Parts: sequence; structure tokens; C-alpha cells
Amino acid sequence: MRRFVSGRLRSLVVHSLQTKQQIRPQQQTPLFLSRFLSAAPALDFPSSMADKSPSPLTVTVGNINPKVVKCEYAVRGEIVILAGKIQEELKANPDSHPFDEILYCNIGNPQSLGQQPITYFREVLALCDHPSILDKSETQGLFSADSIERAWEVLDQIPGRATGAYSHSQGIKGLRDTIAAGIEARDGYPADPNDLFLTDGASPAVHMMLTLLLRSEKDGILCPIPQYPLYSASIALHGGTLVPYYLDEASGWGLEISDLKKQLEDAKSKGVSVRALVVINPGNPTGQVLAEDNQRQIVEFCKQEGLVLLADEVYQENIYVPDKEFHSFKKVARSMGYGETDIPLVSFQSVSKGYYGECGKRGGYMEVTGFSPEVREQIYKMASVNLCSNISGQILASLVMSPPKVGDESYELYLSEKNGILSSLKRRAKTLENALNSLEGVTCNRAEGAMYLFPRIDLPQKAIKAAEAEKTAPDAFYCKRLLNATGIVVVPGSGFGQVPGTWHFRCTILPQEDKIPAIVNRLTDFHKKFMDEFRD
Amino acid sequence: MRRFVSGRLRSLVVHSLQTKQQIRPQQQTPLFLSRFLSAAPALDFPSSMADKSPSPLTVTVGNINPKVVKCEYAVRGEIVILAGKIQEELKANPDSHPFDEILYCNIGNPQSLGQQPITYFREVLALCDHPSILDKSETQGLFSADSIERAWEVLDQIPGRATGAYSHSQGIKGLRDTIAAGIEARDGYPADPNDLFLTDGASPAVHMMLTLLLRSEKDGILCPIPQYPLYSASIALHGGTLVPYYLDEASGWGLEISDLKKQLEDAKSKGVSVRALVVINPGNPTGQVLAEDNQRQIVEFCKQEGLVLLADEVYQENIYVPDKEFHSFKKVARSMGYGETDIPLVSFQSVSKGYYGECGKRGGYMEVTGFSPEVREQIYKMASVNLCSNISGQILASLVMSPPKVGDESYELYLSEKNGILSSLKRRAKTLENALNSLEGVTCNRAEGAMYLFPRIDLPQKAIKAAEAEKTAPDAFYCKRLLNATGIVVVPGSGFGQVPGTWHFRCTILPQEDKIPAIVNRLTDFHKKFMDEFRD
Repeated sequence: MRRFVSGRLRSLVVHSLQTKQQIRPQQQTPLFLSRFLSAAPALDFPSSMADKSPSPLTVTVGNINPKVVKCEYAVRGEIVILAGKIQEELKANPDSHPFDEILYCNIGNPQSLGQQPITYFREVLALCDHPSILDKSETQGLFSADSIERAWEVLDQIPGRATGAYSHSQGIKGLRDTIAAGIEARDGYPADPNDLFLTDGASPAVHMMLTLLLRSEKDGILCPIPQYPLYSASIALHGGTLVPYYLDEASGWGLEISDLKKQLEDAKSKGVSVRALVVINPGNPTGQVLAEDNQRQIVEFCKQEGLVLLADEVYQENIYVPDKEFHSFKKVARSMGYGETDIPLVSFQSVSKGYYGECGKRGGYMEVTGFSPEVREQIYKMASVNLCSNISGQILASLVMSPPKVGDESYELYLSEKNGILSSLKRRAKTLENALNSLEGVTCNRAEGAMYLFPRIDLPQKAIKAAEAEKTAPDAFYCKRLLNATGIVVVPGSGFGQVPGTWHFRCTILPQEDKIPAIVNRLTDFHKKFMDEFRD
Repeated sequence: MRRFVSGRLRSLVVHSLQTKQQIRPQQQTPLFLSRFLSAAPALDFPSSMADKSPSPLTVTVGNINPKVVKCEYAVRGEIVILAGKIQEELKANPDSHPFDEILYCNIGNPQSLGQQPITYFREVLALCDHPSILDKSETQGLFSADSIERAWEVLDQIPGRATGAYSHSQGIKGLRDTIAAGIEARDGYPADPNDLFLTDGASPAVHMMLTLLLRSEKDGILCPIPQYPLYSASIALHGGTLVPYYLDEASGWGLEISDLKKQLEDAKSKGVSVRALVVINPGNPTGQVLAEDNQRQIVEFCKQEGLVLLADEVYQENIYVPDKEFHSFKKVARSMGYGETDIPLVSFQSVSKGYYGECGKRGGYMEVTGFSPEVREQIYKMASVNLCSNISGQILASLVMSPPKVGDESYELYLSEKNGILSSLKRRAKTLENALNSLEGVTCNRAEGAMYLFPRIDLPQKAIKAAEAEKTAPDAFYCKRLLNATGIVVVPGSGFGQVPGTWHFRCTILPQEDKIPAIVNRLTDFHKKFMDEFRD
């Protein structure tokens, strides 16, 4: 009963709390609003509390870890919260906005937009979740023969067939064997299962490596700009310094070694010791695929400068152009003759991306090579503090690195599902890229890979001034306007970093194909009106 | 081919690497040995590398984050690595040791020791993993009617029924609704789904709160001694100070408020600002269940001192004595009249413990109450950097907080599985407790709850001297001897903290019941011989 406050009291409570705590506008969202409401009952609490003087809450933004406050993560930031609010409003009143649904183009989350999982993967996962049906006759009718066989194989790889047990902190050894074999098959170079650390998606792996390398703000990490904000957020959380290098938009987001060197020297001159270079290939948010030559230069640069190469390779299966293909940095380094002890190299992979897009399963791994046994022991210790990653994610990581083969019962279905998804993503990328390039003042590089387009918008001065008046970055101003007018959610370029004075946004290519025409129309229409309003 | 090094070359490589890198003995385990071997091929690498001067690896234990080096996690530490080595040796040669199997009593990992999962939970998880079988006729024959119904309900709680999508960073709202209802039913006080953050087990939740609260080594966290080393490890990793308070072994590991006050004042006098108090109830490694009166004192203490109460309540379902029951700290605080805005309180819960013991699923949540909207926004941001916890774990967290009800088709089976596990754990706890108390110089408090016994051993001076000679803590010396003689793996008390000069070990009550007599016999036999060898 105490949870329900009458309308009038509720508005009073919200008002008084807002006044007292000086809430900023973006906090007046349903999420935070609900907090005020659940805070309200204390006012009419019929209890022994009356004799205690109310004390202010002891934890404030002013006395928490300033690294947390500093950390930003635009992919789930202000505009996404606004989108959630509008979605609630649409649910309550479908006529409340000039569109009938929110079109989420802000995040690489394919299944949230209707992409279906690969049948074989889900069959094996379901059987491993409930192994007692494996030898029942009905199971033959529901599951493919090879998924049943694979589930038995997976169970045999798990000590005691215990899918509900903590595993080895690096992940189940048998599953690591399978993944290592998959890496060997991909690269043509050996992979060692003891180099693999299975993690809940790639993010915890990145955190682990940054925790390891960053001692203070005097330690830097070379990161691409634009970058996926996991890196800037983690570096901020771990108290290091992000040393930016700029990808060259004019050359299709190429990576210039000369710029790397310049930024490295610049950091050194400021007393920052650069520990590692982050490369995201295929690129996020930029969608480019690095040429092998460029990768060789990068490896050589890391070797010469004594940097750890942190290779974010989670989009390795997402390539949409015939003139590019994926080469892992480990393969490139080995092909240059650099062996295990020559270069510290970490490759991140995830089940969230690729054609599988299993974001909710939180599976992934990092392959850690070129570290001394003592340092490896420290990485192992960090992994062990959180015990292990989730077993379903571990199983799925082994499946994506070793999918059905020619001749397996599931192979045809698997291949048609995979090709269906990838060829559709390719068409969507091209359609959106063309649409963006046809807009006044917008240029968009090719989406060679990954799941994103990162168009540049030449915003008129009048729009920039209007944004300033609202104390908003010009690209965020554009994106908010876009959301309010069309329901399309994209992320401002400022969330990823960009050359100062340029403005971009990141738009995924993930809405299902039947939505793409509507997105193109709404975007085109919005952009024209926006330019008509603000054209200098 | 390059991966295979002949026996002689291999031993040379290992030898030279060991010499060069001054490997300490505990690193010569299979895990790390394998690293030397995979490092070996570089020696005969037939490549362009020859023209490049070999450079030393750039990352060393001396130049990584010292907080990582400082962090320790005994539950997966040296003795467990030694056990893994012995297990490999037993596999290669069953006669290599005076026992035929390793008996893991080091970690609360029930299913690794043969505990079976609750059928209903696994049925629902399997159906949610592969929803396309939900409406097939064979499914009726394989799954209970209520698990099918529940799977539909769960799917309807997930936007777009997309179990493969990232969720809201706090977890799927519908599942949080279910969990909140479960908390309300347990406590008799309201719970707000917006207060819940679903996490991959309880560990990441603890990390998140410590990241939030710890700014530097001048910030302290009051932790019980003995404690679960997740806390000491996290505090070390986040650079804060562990402020110990001692549980009183003589009064059954009671928590004395006077000691809390003393330690708090002591910390203050050293310039440490104490931010929070950790309480583990039921206790880990100590197995006690706090009396409600004691909990009230703790709440009052936190209120008066302005501390955040971090309540580790993951063993809430594991209680084995009729005179104790579980009361959540939130219920206790609310019953004292402290409402939402009076006291910052975080309760941690996990699917890894209880009767379900689903460690590998990595599900859990924290209920965060008593923080301002601005601070909540910071917690939300931290959660969002890692996107979300795994969806299977989220679903399972909702199931354990809302299991089958009387009248449901699965109820009888569910209840018999649950009672079977809990009553067996109770018997195992009592048998082991009695056995330990019958050993010379050993005293063991009641296992009132959780999954552990934490006996105290009065080690003879001669044993302490022998340990010193081996540069080992006396309790670790005892535990290593126990492992080598019997295959029983327990964790030295020094991994959890103990009153200086006292020695303990933690032993789980989790081996299956048919193994318990062998454990008792081997332990009794070993202890007698140990005492005969070292008795003063």
C-alpha cells in the first residue's frame, strides 16, 4: 500500500525532490522518476522512525570514485534513454509522436531487431541445458541428429558433464581445444588452448587487459578515433590515459603509421608511457576492413615500440565487400616471422557479432600470446577472482569457432541461415550508405565490414549555434532532432570521438530489411527539413 | 608440426627458460609448463625473423598494475593448482599417489561434485534457448506442462522474445518484476524492480559497488575476518583499504558491534575514511547464521556511522539448524522503521548457491536501495559499459526467486529435489563437523548455514617450524600435506584471514554423501599421522 502515492502527492514529492537535489533534465526519465516515487513512501511511513532524525544519504556523486563519474558510454547514453521514454509514451498513446515505433539503430544488437538465431547453435545449447532429454526418443523428432551428437561431445568435454558447475577460470579445457582448432583452421598457424581465456562477451576481456596494463594516468593506451566507447570508458574507469590516433576519413578510415608515431611521441613528451595499441578490425564505428599491408605496418610498429597489440576482432565474420577479407593480427604477425615470444598480442572475439549475433549469451574469448609465464599467472589470477564465464556462452563460443561441416545433417540449413543473414546485411549496408550519400552535406564511407555506418554531416553554422544555445554538441542536437521527428535512434559521433570540428553519427545496418525503406524515407525527409530550417 | 618438440629439446627449452626467467616453483605446473612448450617453437622458427634482433617481452610483473600483483584469491590458488597437477598425474598413472581420486572440498561448486540440477529450472532454460520447439507436439512428451507455460511467460517478458539480444543494462524488466515479487514475498516489504541490477553471478555486482565507493587507499571497507576472498581481492584490485573486523570464534563466529566500532575508530585515526560494511550472512567461510538481534545492531551501526551496508546474502537458502532462519538485511532495516531514504543498503544474491547450485550459469542480482538518483545513475552507467548480464542467468535468477507453486505439475518433483539436496547437505555438515571435532587439537563451530566448515587446528610448534623451513604458512603446510596424503583439497585459513597465531582451513560440505565416509576416514587417518609426526 505504501508504494502507491496519490497523483497530487506524487507530483509534490517529485517536485520537492527535484528542487532539493537539483536534478538535471536528462534525469527526469522513467527510470529515475520511478526512484523518486519509490522514495516517496518514507514520508508516510508509520513506524518507529519518527524518533530518529532523518540523515542525508551518505553517498553522493561528489564522494564516489571520480573515475566512475568521468567514464562515459554513449551507446547506452542520453539519446537511448530518451528513446526509451518516447517508447513508453507511444505505448500509452500511439498518437503522441509523429511515428508509430522507435527504430533502434544505436547498438549492434541484431536479435533485438528480429534477426533469428542459427538453429543448430540453439539446438545444441538447449540440449546442454537439459541433458536428461538427450536419450529420449521424442528428442530425435525435435532436434537434428548432429546437434544431438554435438551436445554429447560438448558434455563429454565438461568434467562430470556438469554444465552447472564453475569451470576452470580460463574456460572448459575441451571447449578451448575446439576453439584453438578453429583458430588454427582460420589462420593456418598453431593456436594453443592454454592461450585462451573465455569471457562473458569481449568486454570483460578488454577490462581485464586494461586492468593489467594501467598503473596510473601516466600509462596510456593508443586508441583509434573514432573508437568504440568501451575503450574510452574502460580507460577512464581504470585511471589511465587515452592516447588518440586519428583514422583518416578521406582514405576510407585508413590507419596512418605516421600519425601513430606522432601521437606516441606526443604522449611521451607529456610523460605518458604508452603500453598498448588498440586496433578494431573490422572497424567500429567506422566499418572499414584493414588491408593486410596496413596490418603488417601496425605489427611492425608495435614490435619496434614495444607495445602490446590489443586486436578487437569481434567483427571478423562481418565483411561485405569482395575486395576485402579478414586477416587476424596473429596470422599477420606469424606470417612476418614473429613468433610466440616476439610480440605481446591479444585478440578479442565475441559470440555477439558475426552472423550469429548472440549478444544475450555473453560469450567470447581472448587469445593471449607473447606474455611471460609470470604475467600470464597474473592474468589467470584476475580471471579466477570472478571464477569463470557462463558455460552456455563458453559452449556457444566453441560452436561459432567450429560450426557444422559439409555432410553434417544441419549443414545445409546452417549455411542458408548464415548466408541469408550476411547477404541481407550486405544489401542493407549498401542501401543505407547510398541513401546517406544522397543527403545534402552528408558523406559516408563504405561499410566494408562490421555493423555500422559512420556518416559525416556538414552542419550549417545556424544549426551549430542552435545546438550551443541548448548546451548540446551539434551532432547530439542533430540526433535528438532525428529521434523526435522520426523515431530513429542513432548515436552522435561525439560518443566515439572525431576530428574536432567535424560531426558524425553512428547508424547500425541491423534493422530488418523490410524496415529499411521506411528508415531511408524518414531520414531523407527529416534531413531535408532540418537543412531547410538551418541552412546558412 | 612446429608445435612438437622432441623430448630432449623440450627439457632444454624448459630448463633454459626457467633459468633465464627465474621461475618460482609453483609456476612449474602443467598450466604454465604448457606455456614454455608452446613458446619453444620460436627457437626453430624457419622465417624472416632471423634478421630481427630478439627483443625482451615488454610486459613484466614489475611494470604491470601493482594492484593486480597484490590481489590474492586463495580459493583458486596454489593448492588448487597443485591438485590439478596431481589429477593429471593420476590420469597418466593411477598408482602415482596413495589415493585414486582428488576430492575437491575447496570451493562452493556443488554440481562439479555430482549435485544434479533442479529439473524444472533446466526445462525452462532449455525451452527458452530454443523456443521454436515450444509448440511442437513432441515437446509435451519431454517437458512438464508448467515448464512450457513458464517458458512462454518468460519469452513474453523479453522484448521481441529475443533471448539472444542484449537486454536493458539492469536486466530484463519483466524478469526484474518477477524477482521483486519474490523478494516481497520473502520479506513482507515492498521491492522495486528498478532497484535490481542483474549480474553474471554476485561477483561482478560486488566489483561494481567497490568500484563505485573506492577512490584511493584512503577509502576503507569494513570486512569480516575470516572473509570470502572476493572482498579482499576486489578491494586490492580497486586500490582501497580493507578494514578488518574479527568474527568471534568462541561465540560461534558472532559479530561484536564493539569490535566494529573499535576497528572503525582505528581506521579513522589512520586517516582512512570507511565507506561501507560488508556482512556475509550466512557466513562464508564460517557457516554461521546471524541472529536477528545482531542484524538490528549492525543496521543501527551503519545508520549511525553513515556506512553503506553491503549484505552478501547468497546463502539465504542454505540453513541447516532449526534454531536459525534467514532474515534479509532489508527486511530487518524496514522492520526497524528505516525506509528507502534512510540507509544505503545493497543485497547480493546468486544462482550459484542455495539448493540450486547453478554456478556455471553465472546469474545473480543486487538490490540497491538508499542511494540518490544521481548516484544510481552512476551505477547504471557502470552496468551499461558491460552492456548486460547473460540472459540465461537472468532467467534463472527469476526462476529461483519464483519457483513452482503448490498445484503446479512440477511442484512435487521440485520439492523432493530441493528437500533431498538440503537435507543431505544438513547431514553432510553434521557428519563432517563431528568428525573434525573428534580430531586431536581441532575445534569446529556448527555449520548453521552456507556450504562450509572452518575448523581451527592447534598446530604443534614442531609443525609450525617445519612450515617455516619450507617458507609456507603453517595452515598451508597442513593443507598441502593433507592433499598429498589423501587427495582431499581444502583451503588454508590464511586465504580468508584469521586471528593472528590461529590456524584454520575451509572445507566444503559438498562432496556427495557416499564419499563422506571416505573423506572422514582419510582425514582422520592423515591427522593422526600428522600429529604423531609433529606432536611437541
